[in-house]
Amino acid sequence: VTGAPPGQDASHEALVDALRRTVEQQYHHLHPFNLRMHAGGLAREEVRRWIVNRYHYQRHIPVKDGLILAKLPSREARRLWIRRIVDQDGSAGAEGGLEAWLRLGEAAGVRREAMEDEERVLPAVRFAVDAYVNFCRLRPWPEAVAASLTELLAPALMEERIAAFRKHYPWVDPEGLDYFRRRVSQGERDAGEALALVTDVARTPPERAAAVAALRFKCQVLWSLLDAIDTSPQGSRRD
Amino acid sequence: VTGAPPGQDASHEALVDALRRTVEQQYHHLHPFNLRMHAGGLAREEVRRWIVNRYHYQRHIPVKDGLILAKLPSREARRLWIRRIVDQDGSAGAEGGLEAWLRLGEAAGVRREAMEDEERVLPAVRFAVDAYVNFCRLRPWPEAVAASLTELLAPALMEERIAAFRKHYPWVDPEGLDYFRRRVSQGERDAGEALALVTDVARTPPERAAAVAALRFKCQVLWSLLDAIDTSPQGSRRD
Repeated sequence: VTGAPPGQDASHEALVDALRRTVEQQYHHLHPFNLRMHAGGLAREEVRRWIVNRYHYQRHIPVKDGLILAKLPSREARRLWIRRIVDQDGSAGAEGGLEAWLRLGEAAGVRREAMEDEERVLPAVRFAVDAYVNFCRLRPWPEAVAASLTELLAPALMEERIAAFRKHYPWVDPEGLDYFRRRVSQGERDAGEALALVTDVARTPPERAAAVAALRFKCQVLWSLLDAIDTSPQGSRRD
Repeated sequence: VTGAPPGQDASHEALVDALRRTVEQQYHHLHPFNLRMHAGGLAREEVRRWIVNRYHYQRHIPVKDGLILAKLPSREARRLWIRRIVDQDGSAGAEGGLEAWLRLGEAAGVRREAMEDEERVLPAVRFAVDAYVNFCRLRPWPEAVAASLTELLAPALMEERIAAFRKHYPWVDPEGLDYFRRRVSQGERDAGEALALVTDVARTPPERAAAVAALRFKCQVLWSLLDAIDTSPQGSRRD
């Protein structure tokens, strides 16, 4: 950044601030279902319902990341991005995030087949996930990358979640919480890389506004998942 | 395959035969420009023209492979496919195929910038490459994977090409031929994996016909590249 004109520095910082503020205000850590989860208020059946439905989102992460990879502008950018796919799918001798999520389900008493057959995936969850995958398929890459920036808050949420599960849901085998542990360090790295890609390319006010709008859209996707999963009557209201 | 009904075995073998026959008859090893290249008949400027234009194809390989990856049906299939992207883009400490191709260009006296700025890429080459990328973007994954099966003959062609360059174009620094060397073993592995994916899923006559048609289409893409690059008057005729 040294040597950049002062105006550019200021607008770069303003973009980072706007992105952070968007996540802080609209990420699903504030959703009533998530608050209830972390306060220990979920019944076993609700925890399982969340795990099964969230798996539908998880299994589409490498799909959307493949679509983003195909539109990134350089091999340097692809070299960073490809690691996200490996993180989820795993590689020889290294279990990936999808396998870790299936184990979370098993630790909570959900059979692996019941996650993979998707019979319990709610229509609104399918639609929200489709919306996200199609966003990454159809929008310019800086917006698709900006949408991934919910990772800015994910590591903190994962640490809270591990503590909450240990405290409130001791019937879930703690080994099953490995997915959350993996995402603490992966999420920090991913967020840093994505933030650099976006701020490096979003230079004009419309480009910066599009990046913030993409992140807002992604927050809505995650919020909608919890709306659909939440079985409490107040679940979908937001005040 | 043991235990499969005899009819299925036979149709499986018939598909493999049809795919091999398609490549043997329609792959660009038979194109007049390739025959001239391997017989030592190209002027320096023609060799350079081929390298610059073919680079436009090369740099779209990870793009089409990202699109295929995003539509593969399982993480097992993605785990195989992702290696193709790493082969081209490289990874920390390991130069990839794109870098090797740029070095081939340099070894033949083409500046790296002249390959990357694409000013000498011919319109017909752009159109053919676009057609291939869009085929992988829009068609079902078994067809996109079948289109990759030109790899069935690529390793043999690479070995011939290395010998031809050493013999006929000694002004190209032999270290620049590393790209062709890499593709001998990578191509064999890639072809085997893709053939297994396709034959495993193409079970009905229309599915098998679609796989063969996809491979024919891909042969036309590669043939069109050489038609465009070929500067000899007979170049585009095929008897």
